[in-house]
Amino acid sequence: MAAGPELVTLFRAATEDDLIAIVRLLAEDAIPVDRELTAEPLDPRYVHAFAAIARDPNQLLVVAEDAGEVVGTLQLTYIPGLSFRGAWRGQIESVRVASHRRNAGLGEALIAWAVERCRDRGCRMVQLTSTNSRTAAHRFYARLGWTASHTGFKLQPDDGR
Amino acid sequence: MAAGPELVTLFRAATEDDLIAIVRLLAEDAIPVDRELTAEPLDPRYVHAFAAIARDPNQLLVVAEDAGEVVGTLQLTYIPGLSFRGAWRGQIESVRVASHRRNAGLGEALIAWAVERCRDRGCRMVQLTSTNSRTAAHRFYARLGWTASHTGFKLQPDDGR
Repeated sequence: MAAGPELVTLFRAATEDDLIAIVRLLAEDAIPVDRELTAEPLDPRYVHAFAAIARDPNQLLVVAEDAGEVVGTLQLTYIPGLSFRGAWRGQIESVRVASHRRNAGLGEALIAWAVERCRDRGCRMVQLTSTNSRTAAHRFYARLGWTASHTGFKLQPDDGR
Repeated sequence: MAAGPELVTLFRAATEDDLIAIVRLLAEDAIPVDRELTAEPLDPRYVHAFAAIARDPNQLLVVAEDAGEVVGTLQLTYIPGLSFRGAWRGQIESVRVASHRRNAGLGEALIAWAVERCRDRGCRMVQLTSTNSRTAAHRFYARLGWTASHTGFKLQPDDGR
């Protein structure tokens, strides 16, 4: 697990040039593993999705980069709302750390960086959900001070049609 | 519980004229109950939050209206993303039904209407979280076909400062 010499990890907004690396990180960790398509040229649905994220000022697709290699990613969404006296929420989705870089603090630094961006935007709270079976991830978030206060429900609207 | 003659409930996008009624619904159900401010004139933070929601094409603040009375509300957020081959997600927040209109199908109709909007926008999934202690709400969502597959974590970024 030791990373050798200290790596200086850069956290930054993703560009379209990062897209294949991000999709491969998503695929590496996916449940089930076949839900993403990683062949090049990349499926145009990813390119369209990237464009939709990039043009929305309330989305921030983030990469962690070490010496030119994308080693982590997450997506931040800033959500305006009326609850809690008109508070903004930050939301984190699609967190991934490259398998060869896990358990060495990178995930913690990535999450901390994202929480700072939420603070910069004045968010009162930050939220995320994690699949119930990901117990290691749950311990990770609890250690970082997150509270498992909610139950996350999903519905696929085309089921039953 | 009987509603007497069949009420025709209208589901529609909220306008600024609905704002005080929505905030009162939020307050009626809040945990803790003092987190909202319902005095008039309404705290300007709500007005600012309404403007932020209204100008974001990926937000839809919804009210349920019966004979001119706002009897329910929720907020929909459409989130573009790379996961699942570039799928959009719909997200539901801040669901409230007026206390005198509960347990009569209004909440179910409101959620169904929101899910239809997500389908119209091509969302692959719809998601929401509910506080762990709201067991009646959890049974409600399970009955409507939602899966409690995730654990919801929250962090208040200014805690510990």
